[in-house]
Amino acid sequence: MAKGHGHKVWIIPDGYIATTPPEAEGPSGYITHESVCILNDGDKAAHCTLDVYFEDREPMLGIPFDVGGQRSLHLRLDKLETPAGEPIPRDTCYSLRVISDRDIVVQHSRLDVTQPNATLMTTMGYPIED
Amino acid sequence: MAKGHGHKVWIIPDGYIATTPPEAEGPSGYITHESVCILNDGDKAAHCTLDVYFEDREPMLGIPFDVGGQRSLHLRLDKLETPAGEPIPRDTCYSLRVISDRDIVVQHSRLDVTQPNATLMTTMGYPIED
Amino acid sequence: MAKGHGHKVWIIPDGYIATTPPEAEGPSGYITHESVCILNDGDKAAHCTLDVYFEDREPMLGIPFDVGGQRSLHLRLDKLETPAGEPIPRDTCYSLRVISDRDIVVQHSRLDVTQPNATLMTTMGYPIED
Amino acid sequence: MAKGHGHKVWIIPDGYIATTPPEAEGPSGYITHESVCILNDGDKAAHCTLDVYFEDREPMLGIPFDVGGQRSLHLRLDKLETPAGEPIPRDTCYSLRVISDRDIVVQHSRLDVTQPNATLMTTMGYPIED
Repeated sequence: MAKGHGHKVWIIPDGYIATTPPEAEGPSGYITHESVCILNDGDKAAHCTLDVYFEDREPMLGIPFDVGGQRSLHLRLDKLETPAGEPIPRDTCYSLRVISDRDIVVQHSRLDVTQPNATLMTTMGYPIED
Repeated sequence: MAKGHGHKVWIIPDGYIATTPPEAEGPSGYITHESVCILNDGDKAAHCTLDVYFEDREPMLGIPFDVGGQRSLHLRLDKLETPAGEPIPRDTCYSLRVISDRDIVVQHSRLDVTQPNATLMTTMGYPIED
Repeated sequence: MAKGHGHKVWIIPDGYIATTPPEAEGPSGYITHESVCILNDGDKAAHCTLDVYFEDREPMLGIPFDVGGQRSLHLRLDKLETPAGEPIPRDTCYSLRVISDRDIVVQHSRLDVTQPNATLMTTMGYPIED
Repeated sequence: MAKGHGHKVWIIPDGYIATTPPEAEGPSGYITHESVCILNDGDKAAHCTLDVYFEDREPMLGIPFDVGGQRSLHLRLDKLETPAGEPIPRDTCYSLRVISDRDIVVQHSRLDVTQPNATLMTTMGYPIED
C-alpha cells in the first residue's frame, strides 16, 4: 500500500464567489466559481472536512467530503452545501480550512466572469505541519 | 482554547494599485484594488501591523489592524490609511510585510480593471519561521 | 559538477484544459493550454515522469520526459501524449505529479482563451521532501 | 542593524514575454512584461544577480542588480539587459534564478496584453534553503 503525499491541514485565506449577472455569461458557458482542488496519491480514500470562516459571523464548520485513493477532486464551492443544505453565501469574503485524515495536497482556484470576461487566479493552499 | 495555525510574519513583494480610469469601470462595479486576506483560526483576536516598502522613499511602517478569533479578514489596501490619514499611493510599486502577535495565514490578491477587462492574480504570502 | 536545486517529487492538484471553440481564437494565435515549467539548474540531465490523476478513472502513470542540465523546460500538456499515443483528455479535471531522478523546481501555468479573452493563472508546484 | 527576512537563492521556472502587437496596446498604456519583485527588509543593500535559463541554448548568467536596504524592487524583465547590452529574448520560454548576498523575498508576476485584454499571473518564487 502506498501512502499519499502532502499534509492533513491546509488553509486558503482568500475566498469569494461573486454573483454572476445573467448578461455576463460567456459563450463557453463559464460561470463564476471557486474550486478546492485536491490530489490524494495514496491508495486509500481520504475523509475530509471543509471549514468556512467569515468576517462577521460564526464559521460554517465540518462540511464533509471524500477523495478516493489515487484520485483527484475538484470540489466546486459554488455547488457545495452543508449537511443542513446551506450553501456558501455569494458576494461575501471568506477563508477556508481543509482537514483530512490522510496526507493530501490542496490548491484553490477562482474563475470570475462577472465583468464579463473570464479571469482565473490560483494558489497552492498553505500546509500546516503535523 | 484553540491556538491558530500559521506564522507571525508574512511578506508579499509585489504590490501595485493602478489608478482606474473612469471609462474603465465595468458593469459589475469592480474597481482596481488589492487585498491582504487573512485567516485567524485561533480563538483569540490577532493584533497586526502592515508595513509598506517602496522603491525610492522610506517605508510606511506599523499600520494597525486586528483579525478577530475564528474570523477571516480581507483588508482592502485601496481603502487603507495610516493613523495619520495617508493612503497607499497609486501607480507606485511597493512590497508588504504583515506582523501579527498570533499565528495567522496571509494571502494577497489583486483585481485590475484598468484595461478595462477584469484580471485577477493571487499568491500565498511568504511566511517567516519564528 | 554543480548539483541542481529543488526536489524530486512535485504535485499540482488543479489541472484542466478546456476545448477552445474555433471562434474564440484570439488575434495572437493563443490557444488554451497548460504547461508544466521546470528548471534544472544542475549540470546533468534530469529524467522525469509525469503522472496524471483523474476524478473517476485510473491514473495515467509514468509519461516520460527529460530536462537537460542547465536547461528550462516548458512542457505543453495539450501536446503531451503517453508512449501509447494517448493525450490528456480535454474538459476533464485532473491533478499532476512529477517525479525526477534529480532535483528540479516545478511551476504550473494555464492559459485559457475559451471565453475568448486570454486569462492566465500560475502556481509553484508543491514539493515533497525526500 | 536589522537583518532582512527570506533566503539568498530563489527560482522561478515559468518565464515568457510575448511580443505585443501594436494594435493590442490597451487604453491604459499597459504593455506585456514580467517583473521580478523583491523585498529587502534588512538595513543593508542586497547585491544580486539574475540567471536566465533557456530550452535550447546556454543560460545568460550573472546579470547584476541591487536592492537597497528597507526597499522594494520591481525589476522589469522586458527592460533588463546583460552588461553586454543583450535583452531577454521575446516569445521564448525561459526560467529564472536570483542569487543575493543577503536574505530577500522574491515574487514573479506577468502582465500579458497580447490578446489584447490584460491578464495577470503571479507566484512566490521557490526559495532554496541555505
